[in-house]
Amino acid sequence: MLTLSEVLAAAQRIAPHIHRTPVLTSQGLDALLGKALFFKAEHLQKTGSFKARGALNTALQLPTPKGLITVSSGNHAQGVAYAARVLRVPALVVMPADASATKKAATRAYGAEVYDQGVTVENREEVVQRLAQETGYTFIHPFDDLRVMAGQGTLALELLEQAPTLEAVLVAVGGGGLISGVATAVKALRPEVEVIGVEPETANDAQQSLQAGRRVSLPKAPKTIADAVRTLAVGRHTFPVMQRYVDRILTVPDEVTLQAQRLVLERLKQVVEPTAGLALGPVLMGYPLPRRIGVVLCGGNWMP
Amino acid sequence: MLTLSEVLAAAQRIAPHIHRTPVLTSQGLDALLGKALFFKAEHLQKTGSFKARGALNTALQLPTPKGLITVSSGNHAQGVAYAARVLRVPALVVMPADASATKKAATRAYGAEVYDQGVTVENREEVVQRLAQETGYTFIHPFDDLRVMAGQGTLALELLEQAPTLEAVLVAVGGGGLISGVATAVKALRPEVEVIGVEPETANDAQQSLQAGRRVSLPKAPKTIADAVRTLAVGRHTFPVMQRYVDRILTVPDEVTLQAQRLVLERLKQVVEPTAGLALGPVLMGYPLPRRIGVVLCGGNWMP
Repeated sequence: MLTLSEVLAAAQRIAPHIHRTPVLTSQGLDALLGKALFFKAEHLQKTGSFKARGALNTALQLPTPKGLITVSSGNHAQGVAYAARVLRVPALVVMPADASATKKAATRAYGAEVYDQGVTVENREEVVQRLAQETGYTFIHPFDDLRVMAGQGTLALELLEQAPTLEAVLVAVGGGGLISGVATAVKALRPEVEVIGVEPETANDAQQSLQAGRRVSLPKAPKTIADAVRTLAVGRHTFPVMQRYVDRILTVPDEVTLQAQRLVLERLKQVVEPTAGLALGPVLMGYPLPRRIGVVLCGGNWMP
Repeated sequence: MLTLSEVLAAAQRIAPHIHRTPVLTSQGLDALLGKALFFKAEHLQKTGSFKARGALNTALQLPTPKGLITVSSGNHAQGVAYAARVLRVPALVVMPADASATKKAATRAYGAEVYDQGVTVENREEVVQRLAQETGYTFIHPFDDLRVMAGQGTLALELLEQAPTLEAVLVAVGGGGLISGVATAVKALRPEVEVIGVEPETANDAQQSLQAGRRVSLPKAPKTIADAVRTLAVGRHTFPVMQRYVDRILTVPDEVTLQAQRLVLERLKQVVEPTAGLALGPVLMGYPLPRRIGVVLCGGNWMP
């Protein structure tokens, strides 16, 4: 089980290498939506998402890493590439051969080597295991690792300081790395603040899992515009933390996610990815929510 | 001639109603372009552009205005609408009938009435004069007014404080309201800082005017993606200030303006309009420039 002290230690460990991202507000948006919203701007984080936090917190605890390896076609790839650059070791990222050329290029731009020969969504876990053995590089999981979870939780420490009157926090849920870190920090420091997960309607495995009391997997990769949360199931390590600390999970259809992303572009003038819109979705849906809400803008890796 | 004391007075006058916008930086962008860039984020200003400053500074000096009227299809319309809201008087904005529905809607959303019946680019000045007489509303010029110029100049006071080591400032030039205010403040406080105007290649009337020593008009409305600087000529009041204080004017083709706007979206994660990209253009063009440069991101009224 993750504890506050691990999140606090993570914050100290990664501080020299990450941004304390700002919290953005918009009177216009608050008036429009009838809430007081505090947007934690992780799209302005190093690498353009919060993933740099968890990757770094893990990498900085490895005794003598030869290199870092992971499997990701998104923000975690860039987080690991950045962590490797901080450690001055090589990074190897396994991506399906049919992942977009843009994502491969972006990951290479952060200094990682991309391995995609014969890689499919189905065999990529095996490929990464084999390559890890061959190279001796250390595998960094995208979410199911206490060190990764602690790293992601550091953004909640900042948010609670920056917006001390919060009544709830909205967090997009994929594998649960982000929300488990955030919930651990929030419930230790401000237990009255609600921690609310948000999933696409088509990918509500975390909601189902919490209801069932056991991890439920989606039968196949979900279709959703929120590409950062297409995970099939929450993790073995993230799930117990979510069971203990997450108050509820709400779901949002893709149309609302896109509408929310658009509001952030239009009103906050911030370029964020659809999954950042997902977190704002429940406010647009009219779910009963308290007035003062933190919304994690998880990343900005999106281009018009 | 505009003086520093008018800019200082403007800053005090408008302070309760405007944002002190942040200055944004990006290590990645600096590394890419080989400069230290300080972006003054006026797209995060009230109404989404610096125009709120000048409109407010003018409106707040009117003794007993019945209402405000202007002619604009862009940011100035929203600036005047906002100023009228602060004064709690009506605002009337004259726009060509064929101006985009989006712009009309945006201006109405700020509480202004839009008048477009039979209005063309050619007759709009007459229409606004006639309506001003009929309604008794006070006309606020988009740029050629010392009060407007002083208001726009207030952003330079902030920028010099926020980035005290600047060697140059890049400012897009349309009618010259922004650059004359900025240049007045900069040259009074930090005369060694270069004030550099930027125009589209197709709309270099300010460059021609400074070379000729007299105001040169473009023969017809210029084609450029930088829609905030399609003015035919600089103003009677802005020109002498520009002659005195502006160091040089550089021109940028539209392709580079778009490339610069894209860099701001991609690297700073900020939604800005093409004219904000224009100001960054000279850095991409490889013009000889000092290392530490302020770039005014003039507005964010653009949607993907």
